[in-house]
Amino acid sequence: MSVTAAKGFRATGGSMGIKPTGKSDVAIVTTASGKPVAVAGTFTTNKAAAAPVQVTKRHLEATGHQATTVILTSGNANAATGAEGVVHAMELCATVARALEVPPTSVLICQTGLIGIPFPLEATIGGLAPVLQTLGNDEDAGTRAAEAIMTTDTFDKQATVVGSNFTVGAMAKGAAMLAPNMATMLCCITTDADVAHVDLERILRRAVEQSFNRLLTDGAVSTNDTVLLLASGEAGHVDLQEFEQAVTSVCLDMAEKMAEDAEGATKVIHLIVKGAASDEEAHAAARNVADSLLVKCSFNGEDPYWGRVVSELATAGVAFDIDRVSVAYGGTVVCEAGIAKTHDVEVVKAHMAQRHVTLECNLNLGIGSATMLTVDLGHGYIDENRTTS
Amino acid sequence: MSVTAAKGFRATGGSMGIKPTGKSDVAIVTTASGKPVAVAGTFTTNKAAAAPVQVTKRHLEATGHQATTVILTSGNANAATGAEGVVHAMELCATVARALEVPPTSVLICQTGLIGIPFPLEATIGGLAPVLQTLGNDEDAGTRAAEAIMTTDTFDKQATVVGSNFTVGAMAKGAAMLAPNMATMLCCITTDADVAHVDLERILRRAVEQSFNRLLTDGAVSTNDTVLLLASGEAGHVDLQEFEQAVTSVCLDMAEKMAEDAEGATKVIHLIVKGAASDEEAHAAARNVADSLLVKCSFNGEDPYWGRVVSELATAGVAFDIDRVSVAYGGTVVCEAGIAKTHDVEVVKAHMAQRHVTLECNLNLGIGSATMLTVDLGHGYIDENRTTS
Repeated sequence: MSVTAAKGFRATGGSMGIKPTGKSDVAIVTTASGKPVAVAGTFTTNKAAAAPVQVTKRHLEATGHQATTVILTSGNANAATGAEGVVHAMELCATVARALEVPPTSVLICQTGLIGIPFPLEATIGGLAPVLQTLGNDEDAGTRAAEAIMTTDTFDKQATVVGSNFTVGAMAKGAAMLAPNMATMLCCITTDADVAHVDLERILRRAVEQSFNRLLTDGAVSTNDTVLLLASGEAGHVDLQEFEQAVTSVCLDMAEKMAEDAEGATKVIHLIVKGAASDEEAHAAARNVADSLLVKCSFNGEDPYWGRVVSELATAGVAFDIDRVSVAYGGTVVCEAGIAKTHDVEVVKAHMAQRHVTLECNLNLGIGSATMLTVDLGHGYIDENRTTS
Repeated sequence: MSVTAAKGFRATGGSMGIKPTGKSDVAIVTTASGKPVAVAGTFTTNKAAAAPVQVTKRHLEATGHQATTVILTSGNANAATGAEGVVHAMELCATVARALEVPPTSVLICQTGLIGIPFPLEATIGGLAPVLQTLGNDEDAGTRAAEAIMTTDTFDKQATVVGSNFTVGAMAKGAAMLAPNMATMLCCITTDADVAHVDLERILRRAVEQSFNRLLTDGAVSTNDTVLLLASGEAGHVDLQEFEQAVTSVCLDMAEKMAEDAEGATKVIHLIVKGAASDEEAHAAARNVADSLLVKCSFNGEDPYWGRVVSELATAGVAFDIDRVSVAYGGTVVCEAGIAKTHDVEVVKAHMAQRHVTLECNLNLGIGSATMLTVDLGHGYIDENRTTS
């Protein structure tokens, strides 16, 4: 159901001709009433933020954080496309606004795909109208939207959580350039909960921090990352704590699906760093480990080479004492007090052979901890990314 | 000639049985006189610095930065080996000292290889004496030493610069875990120039900054990095400026050979960032580009995908204005003022197909600039690093 699960939203997806393959490349999510609703958003920190990110931020400012509609396109990121790119993004919003009879600034835009190629506006803008005819509020409509935002994704990503008196649904895309502080990922969340904008922003920011920002596949921070949360309010007031749990749960589900679908990855690594001087230091240490090519290669080869893990913990710029550190794979301690520990090699080997692998590091210095989701590095990633053609 | 080129040094290399293959795994560099000479050293910033790094630093402190001898072993890093590792490193120094009849603290030690495996002291210590019998001061002796420090290196790395009245020679190893602020690299430099320790330290630090610290292959900072510069003084006083140029030139030569020999790399990338707010910001931007898996994959695929380069410049945490940035491959500008620039595609294609590729980024904000040497990311790197067996 995803974005159509909550009351008050319609969605669809189809092809407007951006992708030369003719595959589905535009999704629309809009309020059933045509009225604007409260929106929260988090965006990339990349200083080369793409045209759609600039336009969406501008529209949210102009409306006081309200919107009726989101258009999401795939196949061209409309990034590094200059002033013309901004005009193109605004034109896409305006075209949708005319068709749906809503104000142009009430339409937000997300785009994903290749960077630096002018968006083919003239060749595609005519393709929007037929897609807009297919808006619906059923499961099929939600799936059409989720499929239309895929780029190198191998499956569409949707999630729904039903609360005691409300629903939260989401769709997302993302398979590479994933790093904390957002990634080449788009996520559109809808809910029928009636939540004030200020609460919506706080809840979304915390949920993103606990989910997407704990996911690191290749360390790249993309130009287009956007998470939007639209609240129709049709389900009335909700318990904010329960609502926050639901939003976080949906975001976590999306982040895990992105890790599952990471380009060329054969394994999902659940990384835990404990015993750091602070949570921040634990996070920095986890990030350094997750970002290490050598550690990623070891996972690809199913090799519990803990020496590389210790080396990365020791260069993370955090408090570290080699004589205290321990490392465990799947619960089996292989390094204790900074040196090799005798262990059941077969047990570790069996764990490393699984698709989901757990790596736990304990700095034994304090009570700071962090978790992170990452993946291995194999030939597939290189094959996917060596050329754009 | 390398380490035996300068007057006053003898060297050799051979097998003491660390490598199961029986390949050469220990090098000795020592003063011909048996007398201690001035030494400068730079070391890894990794907080899990290996036993040999700890012992070498301790010996340099004890002697007031003087040494007679350096022992360098390959095949086992003696890192993450705890207190026992330190005892083993000291024992290696002591054994060499007894054989050469010099004080144990006048012997420095460098080790490289796998991390976290106890050093096989008992099984190998007896192999030292026969190797020490083969010390010589000719070219063969220097080459034997250079060959004995190779791990995944595919060729031995040596350089010599002859000044107006002095000589500087060096040998080095390093093929992976190369990142600014030192790398899994060992470099031993000898000179017959008579230079005070304080000048030696300053000159070495600046030379390392301009060479090894500008080389980034896989972003890992190793546990064992060491550069040592020994000055016998036998050639007498020298012009310090000429001497600094010679040391820098030798270090640059070694850094370039490491890039040439980077594990699994098919291309050497000469990266230039100009127009930054400061040299430091240019360096940070260059590092972010050089560290990008996506940029490295593009080079592997010979794809001038400048959008990824711009995205990395924009996330380097430095002053950046997308509307000013330009990017050129081999001198051909492909992005100007932040957007695609029409260019001769065939010329860029031909440049990308070469082994040495130049990527020049201009932020057009200030006069800060930096250069960096990096490599592409291909299947070979993964194949080399996925398992240790």
